[in-house]
Amino acid sequence: MSGKFIVIEGLEGAGKSSAIQLVRECIEGAGHPLICTREPGGTPMAEAIRDCVKHDWQERVTVEAELLLMYAARVQLLENVIKPALAQGTWVLGDRHDLSSRAYQGGGRQIDHQMIESLRTISLKGFEPDLTLYLDVEPQVGLERARGRGELDRIEQSGLAFFERTRARYLQLASREPDIQIIDAMQPIEQVHASIRMAMARYLS
Amino acid sequence: MSGKFIVIEGLEGAGKSSAIQLVRECIEGAGHPLICTREPGGTPMAEAIRDCVKHDWQERVTVEAELLLMYAARVQLLENVIKPALAQGTWVLGDRHDLSSRAYQGGGRQIDHQMIESLRTISLKGFEPDLTLYLDVEPQVGLERARGRGELDRIEQSGLAFFERTRARYLQLASREPDIQIIDAMQPIEQVHASIRMAMARYLS
Repeated sequence: MSGKFIVIEGLEGAGKSSAIQLVRECIEGAGHPLICTREPGGTPMAEAIRDCVKHDWQERVTVEAELLLMYAARVQLLENVIKPALAQGTWVLGDRHDLSSRAYQGGGRQIDHQMIESLRTISLKGFEPDLTLYLDVEPQVGLERARGRGELDRIEQSGLAFFERTRARYLQLASREPDIQIIDAMQPIEQVHASIRMAMARYLS
Repeated sequence: MSGKFIVIEGLEGAGKSSAIQLVRECIEGAGHPLICTREPGGTPMAEAIRDCVKHDWQERVTVEAELLLMYAARVQLLENVIKPALAQGTWVLGDRHDLSSRAYQGGGRQIDHQMIESLRTISLKGFEPDLTLYLDVEPQVGLERARGRGELDRIEQSGLAFFERTRARYLQLASREPDIQIIDAMQPIEQVHASIRMAMARYLS
C-alpha cells in the first residue's frame, strides 16, 4: 500500500505552519506513518539550492535562474525523499510543492506558461500531490502577519502587486484542479482550523 | 560595434587552459578588449551553483537536477556578464558554454534530446557563441593527462564509456554546426597551437 502526498500551500502569513501541525495530527491520528518536507529544500543538496535562491546576491537574479533552481531542488526532493517514502507506505506532508512555482513564478513573476510547463514535464514527469490545501489570504493580511514575525526575504520583498498576481493564480488553479482545496484563511483561527479538520476528515474517510 | 563570444570546449585533459591562453593572446593582439568566463560559474551566484554541482553529496544527484543547475548558472552568466560585455564591444572568451551541456548531459548522461532543447529555449532564447573551438581528444588520453594534475571531481569520475559518449556527441554537433571548429588535440602540442592560431587568424581576418 502506497502513502499519500498532502501539500499545504499559501502566501506568506497564510498560516501554513499551524495548518501543517494540524494536518500532521490528523494523518498520524489516522495511524499513518508520516514525514514532513519543505520546498525548496528537504535534502542536503536541495537545502544548498534553497540557500542560493534565498541569498541576497549583489547581482540581478534572473527569473529563469530562479525557476530552474526551484525545479532542481524539487527533483532532488521528489526522487530522493518523497517517492521512496510513498513507495514504503509512508505519507508525506509538504510545506509547499509545485503549485508554489506555478503561482509565484507563473503568476507573481509572470513567467511564460509554456516555460513552466516544460520544466514541470522535465522535472516531475506527471507526478502530482494527492491533496493540496491552499490557504487563501489577501496579501495585505498575510504580509502584515509575516512582517510581525521578523524580516522578509528577497522573494517576500517583491511588493504587493506581485502577491496579488500570485494569489490570483493560486485561486485560478485551485478552481480548475479538483485535488486542490481552498481554505479561507481570513476567517478567525478556530474556523480556519475547523475547515482544515473537515477537509482532512473527508479525505481520510 | 558589438563584441564576439568565442568558446573553448573539450573533454578533461584536452588542453583547454593553454588553448585559452593562446586564444586570449590572439584576440588581444588584434586589439579587442576581452574578458574571460568559465562555466558553470562566472558570477557570484553562478559560482555558488557550480559548488552545488561539483560537491560530493551524500545523496543521488539526479540527471535532471544537474542539468537544471547548469542552465541556472548559464542564465546568470549570460544575462549579467556575457551579454552586457558584448553590448559594450568587449569580446568574451568562454571556458565552456552550452555545447558542454549538450555533449556531457545529452551525450554522456544520455538525457533526452527534447529536455535539453526545452532548457536551451528557456535559458538562452536562441543566443549562440560566434565561434567555438572544440579540442578533440580520445577520453583515455585526456583523462590520463587530467589524472596527472590531481583529483578528478564527481563528474570526472563517471567512467570511460561516459566520456566516449560525450566525445561522440561533441563530434556529431561539430560536424553539423558551422560555427564549431574541431581542433585535433592529440597532435604534438606545437601543432595543436598552430591549428588554434590558424583558426583564430582566419576568424579575425
